[in-house]
Amino acid sequence: MALGRPRGEESAEAVLVLGIDPGTAVTGYGVVARKSVGAVSLVECGVVRTSAGTPLADRIREIYLEVDALLERHRPFAVSVEAVFQGKNVHSALTLGHARGVILLAAALRGVPIAEYAPREIKKAVVGTGDATKEQVAFMVKQQLRLKEPPSPADAADGVAAALCHCMVGSFPR
Amino acid sequence: MALGRPRGEESAEAVLVLGIDPGTAVTGYGVVARKSVGAVSLVECGVVRTSAGTPLADRIREIYLEVDALLERHRPFAVSVEAVFQGKNVHSALTLGHARGVILLAAALRGVPIAEYAPREIKKAVVGTGDATKEQVAFMVKQQLRLKEPPSPADAADGVAAALCHCMVGSFPR
Repeated sequence: MALGRPRGEESAEAVLVLGIDPGTAVTGYGVVARKSVGAVSLVECGVVRTSAGTPLADRIREIYLEVDALLERHRPFAVSVEAVFQGKNVHSALTLGHARGVILLAAALRGVPIAEYAPREIKKAVVGTGDATKEQVAFMVKQQLRLKEPPSPADAADGVAAALCHCMVGSFPR
Repeated sequence: MALGRPRGEESAEAVLVLGIDPGTAVTGYGVVARKSVGAVSLVECGVVRTSAGTPLADRIREIYLEVDALLERHRPFAVSVEAVFQGKNVHSALTLGHARGVILLAAALRGVPIAEYAPREIKKAVVGTGDATKEQVAFMVKQQLRLKEPPSPADAADGVAAALCHCMVGSFPR
């Protein structure tokens, strides 16, 4: 890589990872650039919010179109998605499944590899312990990406954490 | 409608309804043509099967692409989907949600109206009682569509039943 580049420039190409924390009401996402295990930086983060009064099919269409637009804009090397639903309610799990389904579909239709991590794995990779609180995750995300403030809105931090986790423990070229 | 048609031909245009019984392993579907409340006929039915050994993202991509192809081929007036998950397992509900999500998405992206019916509503419309067995549903589907045999494979019958239900209780032009 980096053939023909002038000396002095960094030699490794950064690859992008799109991290997503799926939800029907709020889906958090973050795009992280990775040059090496320790060299990561935040490219973009945000949330997709949908209104509870809107039919489910319209809400998941909105989530799909937003995620597809992120894939189109950033052409990530991989998508990293939170894997396990921790609630106990069958109805909530079914609804969340709709949102996760269209997110995985967006990646699959574009042929982008998908990595799935349980919330504990993400916390372990980012904070060092699977029992970390939401605040500890936000703090470590801020530290590792050298941000002045944790990602905002707060729901975006979980998407960024999913991306960071894959940057740390996933497989990359070279 | 039917302006300029030669006399003797049936006067009402048939509208098509695509009925779907979603599942990650087996999704049953049926396309029913409706000329009036009692005048229905089967256009096509079948199943989409995906293999348990395949990653979930690839399985739901397959379901999405098959349903999208049905929408493209038949241009249905409406899609009728089984609404409620009757299992008690959070993990199964989450997985089923992925399949339902991409099915609703396929319809939403094409702007096809979606009707959702609980299994009891479908049985009530097709058999006359919400407590009907699978066999009774298959039998009444066969009778109402004047088929020689119930829809085959058996899993297709639930998709056909969802379409029939909407043909009977849904709203249609004229």
